[in-house]
Amino acid sequence: MPEPGDGIAALRTELAALHRMLVDSGLVVWTAGNVSARAGDDAFLIKPSGVPYEHLTPDSMVLCDLEGKPADGEQLKPSSDVFAHAYVYRHRPDVGGVVHTHSTYATAWAARGEPVPCVLTAMADEFGGEIPVGPFALIGGDEIGRGIVETLDGHRSPAVLMRNHGVFTIGADARAAVKAAVMCEDVARTVHLSRQLGEPQPMDAADIDRLYDRYQNAYGQ
Amino acid sequence: MPEPGDGIAALRTELAALHRMLVDSGLVVWTAGNVSARAGDDAFLIKPSGVPYEHLTPDSMVLCDLEGKPADGEQLKPSSDVFAHAYVYRHRPDVGGVVHTHSTYATAWAARGEPVPCVLTAMADEFGGEIPVGPFALIGGDEIGRGIVETLDGHRSPAVLMRNHGVFTIGADARAAVKAAVMCEDVARTVHLSRQLGEPQPMDAADIDRLYDRYQNAYGQ
Amino acid sequence: MPEPGDGIAALRTELAALHRMLVDSGLVVWTAGNVSARAGDDAFLIKPSGVPYEHLTPDSMVLCDLEGKPADGEQLKPSSDVFAHAYVYRHRPDVGGVVHTHSTYATAWAARGEPVPCVLTAMADEFGGEIPVGPFALIGGDEIGRGIVETLDGHRSPAVLMRNHGVFTIGADARAAVKAAVMCEDVARTVHLSRQLGEPQPMDAADIDRLYDRYQNAYGQ
Amino acid sequence: MPEPGDGIAALRTELAALHRMLVDSGLVVWTAGNVSARAGDDAFLIKPSGVPYEHLTPDSMVLCDLEGKPADGEQLKPSSDVFAHAYVYRHRPDVGGVVHTHSTYATAWAARGEPVPCVLTAMADEFGGEIPVGPFALIGGDEIGRGIVETLDGHRSPAVLMRNHGVFTIGADARAAVKAAVMCEDVARTVHLSRQLGEPQPMDAADIDRLYDRYQNAYGQ
Repeated sequence: MPEPGDGIAALRTELAALHRMLVDSGLVVWTAGNVSARAGDDAFLIKPSGVPYEHLTPDSMVLCDLEGKPADGEQLKPSSDVFAHAYVYRHRPDVGGVVHTHSTYATAWAARGEPVPCVLTAMADEFGGEIPVGPFALIGGDEIGRGIVETLDGHRSPAVLMRNHGVFTIGADARAAVKAAVMCEDVARTVHLSRQLGEPQPMDAADIDRLYDRYQNAYGQ
Repeated sequence: MPEPGDGIAALRTELAALHRMLVDSGLVVWTAGNVSARAGDDAFLIKPSGVPYEHLTPDSMVLCDLEGKPADGEQLKPSSDVFAHAYVYRHRPDVGGVVHTHSTYATAWAARGEPVPCVLTAMADEFGGEIPVGPFALIGGDEIGRGIVETLDGHRSPAVLMRNHGVFTIGADARAAVKAAVMCEDVARTVHLSRQLGEPQPMDAADIDRLYDRYQNAYGQ
Repeated sequence: MPEPGDGIAALRTELAALHRMLVDSGLVVWTAGNVSARAGDDAFLIKPSGVPYEHLTPDSMVLCDLEGKPADGEQLKPSSDVFAHAYVYRHRPDVGGVVHTHSTYATAWAARGEPVPCVLTAMADEFGGEIPVGPFALIGGDEIGRGIVETLDGHRSPAVLMRNHGVFTIGADARAAVKAAVMCEDVARTVHLSRQLGEPQPMDAADIDRLYDRYQNAYGQ
Repeated sequence: MPEPGDGIAALRTELAALHRMLVDSGLVVWTAGNVSARAGDDAFLIKPSGVPYEHLTPDSMVLCDLEGKPADGEQLKPSSDVFAHAYVYRHRPDVGGVVHTHSTYATAWAARGEPVPCVLTAMADEFGGEIPVGPFALIGGDEIGRGIVETLDGHRSPAVLMRNHGVFTIGADARAAVKAAVMCEDVARTVHLSRQLGEPQPMDAADIDRLYDRYQNAYGQ
């Protein structure tokens, strides 16, 4: 996994590959979803606006400052979600990557404005509780970014369901944010299906805490 | 993206590739769906009838006049939907491409004769409101084409759900019509799932207007 | 498409390819589904029992007589569904191919013992009415075959839902039976989804007749 | 299919391939699922913790003793589910392979704590009755393993739904356990869908017995 210190070139390559993962995971159709990655202290890379995933290359990723303004020399316009990403990077210095999708099941919860309850051990592991719902917000200014940051404040979840819209996820790096987007859709789908035929059994808050702590601290290599 | 001015050959290649996108997007099975593209002032290209997608080549696309009659020298019969496409091209000079599918979720709404309500920002972007329902109409004459044109008149949606049948979409070119078909199935599916567990929250008409205007005018490169 | 007159070798190749289509169409998992093809007047070829699809070759198809007995020299045991296929070939001289699957949505209707109502033009085209339900029957003798033949007698549908079990389809050749299996799952899924949120609108019997007649006689090349 | 006698190397290769089957069958996302295989009398091989499926190689499989302790020289930490697998191998000498997934439909039943009723001939074949539900249990000790063994004791099913968690399956070898995981998700999905629109028809216990006996004894080559 590249670090900013590896230079922008490595990060561009990583970001193009992560967009491919969004497609392969079935989280996006056409051009509706994007990944960004913090690049040093005062910039980030993001998908260009309206470019089909199959045409994305490392070079097509757009370097922007933390206000969402493209760097000199960039040929393409950044994603129209650029200001939401920028807001998150400005207000959450711990965040190194942001993902936005309209993945189907998560967006179905978002359209009802209903959080996904934590009724699976896999949810406790990754989200540490429910996946919360943020406000309805129009694109183009700070409104979406502020909704993301304010909603995630006070939750352990790296994912937020923006009302009538879709999902934003954050992570220590872009790959972690993609993982959160994949897991968000997976658990949103499983809990949706479970509720179709009755009520999932609730989990104890203490069990959720134990699972979250173990997964965040002891899982992996 | 080829323009008619590039000649018919380029348009045939584009049209074969767009049929491949219908398959890859999961919108069609066997031979049940087709794309057409306007070719100059008084003709269009369309899929041949009953030919499996994996056998389609640029040469197998059938050039027809605006009454749906194949041009001299065409070896294959055009899609049996040819008269619906022809009617649209005759009555909508702004339309450069038409797509027909029986994509699953959209057709499930069509079977109930129920429009897909606009409860997602992605729907506001692409459809500018609900996806409307057209009449039940038998294949083979002008009945389906007239139903498409009359239903879309008065809606911003480039997609119409033909009752007990499936989806027709239009676009400035064939690729735009394919995009509308992909987005139609995507939002039909998300709203279907959302409604399974309750009621999606309505969106303000003014917000839908703002989103539609921005997406149509400011999105992309 | 090979004809029996092309010899058994061509039919073996075709049959291996058709099993691949079952897999690619998502109709089967593991080893649960099979295709057979009539081979001359008194024999048919069928999948071997319990062999994974990825290991199937033209040579692994098992030639059987119309009682389901493998021909001399066959190394592999035929599918345990062989007697059902054999019964159909004995009693329906018009049938050149038989397919069996547990495809998901069709089998969900079969588990309730409920026919799929004809509420889609695509159903009228291919099935000419509802997809009927056959009896519960145990594997290993004539019981399933008789259930298939007796149920399809009096329906235009080439597909039957065997209660608590799955789907059998027939066709003039094996490819037509595979097409019926693909279309059966497709419409079973669409009608299932449509009914989840209300009642699909019924179609007039006269319209179903017209659509069926046109599709069977005028569609394709 | 390799036998332990073929040596550990062959088993490592087999186990890497079986993880690929979990991915291709859609049973797992990201790193959430694992396969293990008994390796001789007092050891088993298992997936390493948190390693993406696309990075797995035969060498990355971790050899552990029956307490779940990695063998000397192993570079990677075993799956955090290692103690559940180890418990099963210690208490079920007939078991040669164990699989764990969070496959969607099976986990949806597990979240409600509801067994999948046996209403399909394919379920009778593979599971010989319902797929039972085991207790809620925290990861990291013997609790999950004990829940698996105690729940499967008294059922013919090789699959158990662990409450609010996911699926564990067992088999004579790892491939058989993967088959059980594939079939478990398939029938959990079909029965779920069937119940969405009504009640599946029950099957006679005697019919289930006959189907199970035949499938276990007469099916395959």
